Amino acid sequence: MTHPLFTKHEATLDQALAAIATRGYWSPFSEMPSPKVYGETANSDGEAAFKAHLNRPFELDQPFSGETVGNERSPFGFELGIRYPKMDIDTLLAASTAAQRQWRAAGPTAWVGVSLEILSRLNKASFEIGYSVMHTTGQAFMMAFQAGGPHAQDRALEAVTYAWDQLRRIPADAHWEKPQGKNPPLAMHKQFTVVPRGTGLVLGCCTFPTWNGYPGMFADLATGNTVIVKPHPGAILPLAITVRIAREVLREAGFDPNVITLLATGGNDGPLVQDLALRPEIKIIDFTGSTQNGNWLECNAHQAQVYTEKAGVNQIVIDSVDNIKAVASNIAFSLALYSGQMCTAPQNIYVPRDGIRTSEGQMSFDEVAKALAAAVEKLVADPARAVELTGAIQNEGVMSRIAEARQLGEVLTDTQSLAHPVFPDARVRSPLMLKLDVHADAKNFTREWFGPISFVIATDSTAQSLELAGSIAAEHGALTFSIYSTDDAVVEAAYATAIHGGVALSINLTSGVFVNQTAAYSDFHGTGANPAANAALSDAAFVANRFRVVQSRAHVAPKAAAPTVGQTA
Amino acid sequence: MTHPLFTKHEATLDQALAAIATRGYWSPFSEMPSPKVYGETANSDGEAAFKAHLNRPFELDQPFSGETVGNERSPFGFELGIRYPKMDIDTLLAASTAAQRQWRAAGPTAWVGVSLEILSRLNKASFEIGYSVMHTTGQAFMMAFQAGGPHAQDRALEAVTYAWDQLRRIPADAHWEKPQGKNPPLAMHKQFTVVPRGTGLVLGCCTFPTWNGYPGMFADLATGNTVIVKPHPGAILPLAITVRIAREVLREAGFDPNVITLLATGGNDGPLVQDLALRPEIKIIDFTGSTQNGNWLECNAHQAQVYTEKAGVNQIVIDSVDNIKAVASNIAFSLALYSGQMCTAPQNIYVPRDGIRTSEGQMSFDEVAKALAAAVEKLVADPARAVELTGAIQNEGVMSRIAEARQLGEVLTDTQSLAHPVFPDARVRSPLMLKLDVHADAKNFTREWFGPISFVIATDSTAQSLELAGSIAAEHGALTFSIYSTDDAVVEAAYATAIHGGVALSINLTSGVFVNQTAAYSDFHGTGANPAANAALSDAAFVANRFRVVQSRAHVAPKAAAPTVGQTA
Repeated sequence: MTHPLFTKHEATLDQALAAIATRGYWSPFSEMPSPKVYGETANSDGEAAFKAHLNRPFELDQPFSGETVGNERSPFGFELGIRYPKMDIDTLLAASTAAQRQWRAAGPTAWVGVSLEILSRLNKASFEIGYSVMHTTGQAFMMAFQAGGPHAQDRALEAVTYAWDQLRRIPADAHWEKPQGKNPPLAMHKQFTVVPRGTGLVLGCCTFPTWNGYPGMFADLATGNTVIVKPHPGAILPLAITVRIAREVLREAGFDPNVITLLATGGNDGPLVQDLALRPEIKIIDFTGSTQNGNWLECNAHQAQVYTEKAGVNQIVIDSVDNIKAVASNIAFSLALYSGQMCTAPQNIYVPRDGIRTSEGQMSFDEVAKALAAAVEKLVADPARAVELTGAIQNEGVMSRIAEARQLGEVLTDTQSLAHPVFPDARVRSPLMLKLDVHADAKNFTREWFGPISFVIATDSTAQSLELAGSIAAEHGALTFSIYSTDDAVVEAAYATAIHGGVALSINLTSGVFVNQTAAYSDFHGTGANPAANAALSDAAFVANRFRVVQSRAHVAPKAAAPTVGQTA
Repeated sequence: MTHPLFTKHEATLDQALAAIATRGYWSPFSEMPSPKVYGETANSDGEAAFKAHLNRPFELDQPFSGETVGNERSPFGFELGIRYPKMDIDTLLAASTAAQRQWRAAGPTAWVGVSLEILSRLNKASFEIGYSVMHTTGQAFMMAFQAGGPHAQDRALEAVTYAWDQLRRIPADAHWEKPQGKNPPLAMHKQFTVVPRGTGLVLGCCTFPTWNGYPGMFADLATGNTVIVKPHPGAILPLAITVRIAREVLREAGFDPNVITLLATGGNDGPLVQDLALRPEIKIIDFTGSTQNGNWLECNAHQAQVYTEKAGVNQIVIDSVDNIKAVASNIAFSLALYSGQMCTAPQNIYVPRDGIRTSEGQMSFDEVAKALAAAVEKLVADPARAVELTGAIQNEGVMSRIAEARQLGEVLTDTQSLAHPVFPDARVRSPLMLKLDVHADAKNFTREWFGPISFVIATDSTAQSLELAGSIAAEHGALTFSIYSTDDAVVEAAYATAIHGGVALSINLTSGVFVNQTAAYSDFHGTGANPAANAALSDAAFVANRFRVVQSRAHVAPKAAAPTVGQTA
């Protein structure tokens, strides 16, 4: 019995299956906030929907006491004033557990069909979600729309597709018939049932609540688990809207909406999360956040499958270039984009202290550093345009980190406050770039400085730059790694470095692709092979252990005739 | 570049891929020790090869100090007297690490091709390995040959097949081309490299050293990892022969034989194993053994992917039967086979205290218990035939457990020493069966009594039997579960119980299939859904996290022409 929602979306799923196999470009969701695609009034409707959430209780029909929580503040300078239902953990776990039986029994095509329908509805809400992502994370609108809307939906669909790609390999039943020489064969009928783990917990982050939260959430749903979504206290709204839409779809499809629930918190939720994460009902945890919290989950939540994305040190090795301007402007864009508040943003830029070869001759280290700094300065020269790239600083922790980083070395370009033309109280800072030395400053550049902070590091040679990049990735984690070189042997050595460090390599990016961007269905986000993440988005390993298979077997009559005396084959 | 050994075995691999998809009967390895299949002198040659190992050093060209270890004793009553190279852990890890680079670079078809060639050679050594399994585990020869030879090879091939089924989904490269409206598309060439985790550690058990050891070993090899095989000190020889054969194949194929190494120990190796298991070089651990040791690994070896098979309580629910004799004789066989020293052997048999329905009328609890005991007694009535079923008791721990169990309740049939016609000093015991009560004896029957020990437990009802079976499986683990019922609704309830307990169900087994047997490619062994095992043999989850993928991307020229002004689609 194929679920009708599966049939409805099967053509999309088939295309997605082809995309993850060939890994070329594909997406069913338009990344342009175009009125032609989303409707003439989609932008204003979405903004109005966002504004309608402000300064009032968020309606969510979950079983709760009546108390509310919520302290979100837009990095663009105002309180959201939204109050969410405060959930008691025991009540929440009981509701999630109670929803399991019917959901589990519905089977794979229902799980996948419902997941795809939710995504289709989320896509229609991309503007509302986009504005919500903007005013919780500090992303500028275009990025909030794209990364928080269609790109997040792509990563979700990718996870659903991987889940289905594994689920479809489990036959519902089998006839097993073993020859027994001259005796009749042994024959058995076997039945195979996909059994979800139980309840999954998704722990969201404050910078990419949907993009980082959706893969685990949809991998759980598509494999028949129920899900508790615990957003970061600073970025609840995008996930609250998501959960509400998902619950609507579940209810319409005849399921208990508590298959997915929201656990909103008002801040300082560490002890509550630790309690919840160790509860026996929680069988899967998807986490994006600090290394400290991620490691704690990996080392303590033994009852659960734990998938983490944590801190890392992203690196760029500059060996030689054709056109330093193209290189510097590509790198500057990566540094300025959302003020470096991306897990994929580069931090360490290694340049040999003796300089590099370019098509216009040798450039000294200082000239390269200056070109990089100049490119950043050019990008942020016009604040009104710059803020559409940098967005705002998500939290005060990033602000203090910028202040602390300014003391680490010679400033190549200093951070400055940028005036936002629309939001006068927005917390906007241009990127800070410092000059460091490979020998003197290792203790500082071997850790993550999350935010608009980068280091141009003088090394003894490209060979040393590569060795360092590989060992830092392997020991401290990394999600991205770039090489700039006109020498094929160096590029090849960089790929060997990437393999050693377990990190994806981008080679000579100069045009419209940036190292901090990954494309769903094509680029794996993270590898699971270094400390920055123990999983990749998405692959078979990300989904295959979210369900198990229980089987039965019973004798049946053989289908083959027993050999007859005198008969020859 | 497809490796020649992959091409050589590709037809077998294709059949194995079809088998795991349809889960019907299939095997490329003959389970009958037939001269027609294995050669006229295979049996005597194999026995001679086994005997040639006795009382001398085992030749293995691993880097070692010259010291040797080894204290194996046949449960059939003699010292093996074999001395194995004693390995220093640092030397071993260094050798395994040094072997990684070339092996990793060889790529998936080499890993899979070499694995398949090793299996083909192991199959030819099935008699030598069979005798070695017999005289380390205590299995009777036929079982030692089948479970230790072709069936273990089947489970290994199954793991290799699952590995290949995942590996083949990763394209070597991709062309990614994203339309940009009226501008030329963005185009990138991407390269994907499968990167093994590093070094795997396989921790063997003393009852099924090859059957339980091969899946992890071959899953590691087939995904490009190097492997250290640490057999149980009581059952080294079968894995030592295996490692030697694997090293020969590796060497012939031009690889460093240290891709696979043996770590033999002389007993009391707990501290050494704990040291090794936490070493950062160890990225994967496959363990079969006690719950205590398995849990320790799961909770402490955070640097590794840990796959465990531990203790469990296997259960049979008797509700109603057509033919009690057929039921009793099937169950008795399961209890006697290898003296219950199987992780799949039943232990708890629940019968309602008010008795059961049969086609010949109602039977009281005591009549059912007596029928079960009588069937066991009949099976072991002729010691010379019985020993071919029971084999010998592997170790003194099982002997003391039998003695302890005799005190737990009313004895239905007592254990007795059986004389072995060939090996007068063999440690052979017939099964012990006790009568217990569901209310009084729960503290005893909720844990595993590994060995020829079973309990017929009086319950209040079949409903209670099922409830108990499900909750014991979920809380204490179980690998097998049987229902005997002529009522479809009860069978259906038993399947719901199996899903709750995360355990495979066998329904009304009466002819030549026994609950303790699982068929590779068709039956999953373990589910990973209860405490008896955190993984199943084999499925995608068992292999997909043993490797990771590292990619690169670089700009290339688009393949599609940019839209031309005036041109319409």
